[in-house]
Amino acid sequence: MKAILIMGSKADINFCKKIADKLAFFGIDCEMKVASAHKTPMRVLEIIREFENEDVVFVTVAGRSNALSGFVDANTTKPVIACPPVSESFAGMDILSSLRMPSGVAPMVVLEPENCALAVAKIFGIKNENIRKKILEYQVNKKREIEEAEI
Amino acid sequence: MKAILIMGSKADINFCKKIADKLAFFGIDCEMKVASAHKTPMRVLEIIREFENEDVVFVTVAGRSNALSGFVDANTTKPVIACPPVSESFAGMDILSSLRMPSGVAPMVVLEPENCALAVAKIFGIKNENIRKKILEYQVNKKREIEEAEI
Amino acid sequence: MKAILIMGSKADINFCKKIADKLAFFGIDCEMKVASAHKTPMRVLEIIREFENEDVVFVTVAGRSNALSGFVDANTTKPVIACPPVSESFAGMDILSSLRMPSGVAPMVVLEPENCALAVAKIFGIKNENIRKKILEYQVNKKREIEEAEI
Amino acid sequence: MKAILIMGSKADINFCKKIADKLAFFGIDCEMKVASAHKTPMRVLEIIREFENEDVVFVTVAGRSNALSGFVDANTTKPVIACPPVSESFAGMDILSSLRMPSGVAPMVVLEPENCALAVAKIFGIKNENIRKKILEYQVNKKREIEEAEI
Amino acid sequence: MKAILIMGSKADINFCKKIADKLAFFGIDCEMKVASAHKTPMRVLEIIREFENEDVVFVTVAGRSNALSGFVDANTTKPVIACPPVSESFAGMDILSSLRMPSGVAPMVVLEPENCALAVAKIFGIKNENIRKKILEYQVNKKREIEEAEI
Amino acid sequence: MKAILIMGSKADINFCKKIADKLAFFGIDCEMKVASAHKTPMRVLEIIREFENEDVVFVTVAGRSNALSGFVDANTTKPVIACPPVSESFAGMDILSSLRMPSGVAPMVVLEPENCALAVAKIFGIKNENIRKKILEYQVNKKREIEEAEI
Amino acid sequence: MKAILIMGSKADINFCKKIADKLAFFGIDCEMKVASAHKTPMRVLEIIREFENEDVVFVTVAGRSNALSGFVDANTTKPVIACPPVSESFAGMDILSSLRMPSGVAPMVVLEPENCALAVAKIFGIKNENIRKKILEYQVNKKREIEEAEI
Amino acid sequence: MKAILIMGSKADINFCKKIADKLAFFGIDCEMKVASAHKTPMRVLEIIREFENEDVVFVTVAGRSNALSGFVDANTTKPVIACPPVSESFAGMDILSSLRMPSGVAPMVVLEPENCALAVAKIFGIKNENIRKKILEYQVNKKREIEEAEI
Repeated sequence: MKAILIMGSKADINFCKKIADKLAFFGIDCEMKVASAHKTPMRVLEIIREFENEDVVFVTVAGRSNALSGFVDANTTKPVIACPPVSESFAGMDILSSLRMPSGVAPMVVLEPENCALAVAKIFGIKNENIRKKILEYQVNKKREIEEAEI
Repeated sequence: MKAILIMGSKADINFCKKIADKLAFFGIDCEMKVASAHKTPMRVLEIIREFENEDVVFVTVAGRSNALSGFVDANTTKPVIACPPVSESFAGMDILSSLRMPSGVAPMVVLEPENCALAVAKIFGIKNENIRKKILEYQVNKKREIEEAEI
Repeated sequence: MKAILIMGSKADINFCKKIADKLAFFGIDCEMKVASAHKTPMRVLEIIREFENEDVVFVTVAGRSNALSGFVDANTTKPVIACPPVSESFAGMDILSSLRMPSGVAPMVVLEPENCALAVAKIFGIKNENIRKKILEYQVNKKREIEEAEI
Repeated sequence: MKAILIMGSKADINFCKKIADKLAFFGIDCEMKVASAHKTPMRVLEIIREFENEDVVFVTVAGRSNALSGFVDANTTKPVIACPPVSESFAGMDILSSLRMPSGVAPMVVLEPENCALAVAKIFGIKNENIRKKILEYQVNKKREIEEAEI
Repeated sequence: MKAILIMGSKADINFCKKIADKLAFFGIDCEMKVASAHKTPMRVLEIIREFENEDVVFVTVAGRSNALSGFVDANTTKPVIACPPVSESFAGMDILSSLRMPSGVAPMVVLEPENCALAVAKIFGIKNENIRKKILEYQVNKKREIEEAEI
Repeated sequence: MKAILIMGSKADINFCKKIADKLAFFGIDCEMKVASAHKTPMRVLEIIREFENEDVVFVTVAGRSNALSGFVDANTTKPVIACPPVSESFAGMDILSSLRMPSGVAPMVVLEPENCALAVAKIFGIKNENIRKKILEYQVNKKREIEEAEI
Repeated sequence: MKAILIMGSKADINFCKKIADKLAFFGIDCEMKVASAHKTPMRVLEIIREFENEDVVFVTVAGRSNALSGFVDANTTKPVIACPPVSESFAGMDILSSLRMPSGVAPMVVLEPENCALAVAKIFGIKNENIRKKILEYQVNKKREIEEAEI
Repeated sequence: MKAILIMGSKADINFCKKIADKLAFFGIDCEMKVASAHKTPMRVLEIIREFENEDVVFVTVAGRSNALSGFVDANTTKPVIACPPVSESFAGMDILSSLRMPSGVAPMVVLEPENCALAVAKIFGIKNENIRKKILEYQVNKKREIEEAEI
């Protein structure tokens, strides 16, 4: 049970580390890979094959025109979560490149690293009771934060 | 193993039926519910509780300002896929109400009913080999469609 | 006669204090609450019930995907003013989540804390002559500011 | 107790009639006026003065660059609801002309005629118990519509 | 022959001074006024009347929802140039409030103070040969700047 | 005293005729020309020269990326009004190509043919009392239309 | 000397035929292929290899999130022109997925089939005098169309 | 074999130097010119003529409303690449002025200086084997950068 984080460029490493940190909270291991759907597609396919018989969820992290998320999703039967870093350019509308998929390609889009980790946890939670308990604990904490806010 | 489709208004029934049809292809049952995070939140919470100990993925279908997806996600440990029908008004930017979640709320956004069903299938596929095989069959067909296109 | 400010996160406290300060000018008391439509909906409903028999206007302050304003409005017969802090991300289009309400849900949107306080005052003004006088005084001052501007 | 609907052009008459019809449901009378902040500002000021000592809420209906709503609001101590018909041109962004008010000008924006009427009702509801009861009845019906939806 | 600069708020004084400086280059006098179409419409009408029998072009400077430009234009037979300071909020789309005029209201939109002064000069140039010569001199300089650019 | 309408393509002829019709109401003659800043710049320059010693205002009508308006404006001392037909594509944002001029280039933007004709009339009105009277008559009619609207 | 048109889906065939027709005018052969960067990347790479030693320009035609153009460009030393069909959804902002390339990936974007063919011709024109002559003939015709427009 | 960089204003010199630097890597000479389609069109035409019988690709660099790229393209048979510096204003939508060309005008749009240089190289590569080898070397390096990224 592992999340495979594929980032399109090494520049996204800090963004990915935030996802990894939160995954650790939920007790989920992860591996981080750098590979580009544009420039090193064979490497991407190799990564997909490497984990095809393992228990994984892919997380794809790519800014600008995000080809990576759809590319990974179309070539694996595993769930793929697209977590694109949002750019300030063009009113953030690069996000459409993560959303506007052709038929048969279905990466699931989640913004922000923390929420991405939670989404991964929820997927693994359908078969792992410990993770479900961690999610519950996490959600209870989030509620408590609000309930106990002093103003 | 079941997808629970919650639509915010009965007006979205045809959109939801497209999801249900495709889920059937993957061998996944579904139940359809009408409930509004704005107007009948207790009913939404009741639906969530009803399935808390079952093996489900929630799919939320709500247009305009989509409160439903985040509301369901924050109140369940199960995975939630938001599949909002895209409006032509305001350049489709209602989509942001499905994406811009606060910390601790993580519905996964997928546009188009068919792709939504595929995403549900991929999630269940992590514990069900039959579904994984159906996904593979589906993906092979999609590839073949392209490879055999005569022009 | 009181304004109930509900903020979705403690992070909006300074924004809310600006509303409160201006309400004080108009002679209107306020209470500030932290509660999330996503994460603590029962708490929100509790706050609504608490004031259902009092003479209040609700002000809802929530950024990103604003579920709070519609949620409060749909569950109270009292007037609700949505005053969402505008984000620089996505060209501020989160504002649509405050505006694009389904039928039967009608929070009234006002940008900027000062103007929000004025709108609250105008609502209470329909039954309180003192507040109406304060509004008039306020408007006269605003006019004078312009008329006496030296350039 | 009356809603004064001011439309910037006779072309908005059908839009206004929808508001009037719904106001009737809540037991609220209304008068409809045509006046333009650009072209007949003295007429607008005259309408405002005519009702200054009456128990009214103004509703302003103007498309394109909406000067009317801010103009009315700045010149009355009464509450003003802006209900601009949304254009398909420019991605509906004319809406910003209703929202982006200078300091001291605070029309409250509500989209859609039905919701506008509800907002008017909520304002009058703070001093009229009959209207509050009508709102409650209306909200209960809205909830029932969803609860009883058969799919 | 004079340009009358009306700014909606004293905050726009520096922006207006840039217009005035450039007008001086073209040999055109100007007067600067502060008046708001929303808050002091009578003052705006008074300014318009004051110059109705003089040889003037109006320049209106107002940010956010620009009611001033259309208001001035609809109430004078003189040419009106709208020169709104562009905001970074909402992707600068406040500009639409200067452009989307109803029938019979026609302020002419020019961005940037320098270009606004040039446009005023061109209008006066149709009856004043000296100004036309200044424009020609200005344009020749602009061309020379480019032709002599060393890189 | 004449308006010179330059359209970038013959396809804009009907749009231009609407301007011409309204100019006729104001007693202003016009000539219509087809010329493209991209494809026939020498022809555009020739047209400009042809009228350099006449009493004219240029109106430029070009859709998509509007190079024509800035091109004409930079090469004449006469006033230039850009009246671009608004496209439904890209949320009408082609309008920016008419507005975002470099320093020293100042076409004045007016949307809609009728308003464009009015703007031309206002410019000529600064030296022609008859036209000023026509504008006044026109504005009085516009006001009356609103004042006499029966609803 | 040949243009290789790769379309992401057979649905784009009519769009591609318009490019092919115009290429024929310039005396340029073309081959049309269907292949998807998402679903059949190996097929895309195979097409690229097939023409690596031939004298070709690639034209990529893919709507929605356009992964194809960048994918082809990154894997060939040949020039690649992206000619995405523009969607009405989301204000046409899918176009950003063709433009916002990472470093080292440089498809050249041209909208409209006819202009795409012209761009291909210009590229081949740098080594083929006959094509250059055809371009000149084409441009002369375009100019003449404008010069001879009767209005 | 040379790239001719035309910038609309000297202010773009640093942007152009980045293109020149990368062109040098590919072994391609370049000349830089300052000329404006608006203000010095004759100079632009002169530059075009100067190189009409040479082996060149034009690169046009102009911000705001980009008239230069289409102007150059329509007046030369050579390939033209538009590389507009992206503005933060108006959500970067000035880019449309580079894309929305009329029929018969086909500058090819590439964002970012480095990618622009690569596109130029690919065009020259169709007739120069050395440049093709440089592109291959460049692409291999780009791939290696990703493959060897240590994280």
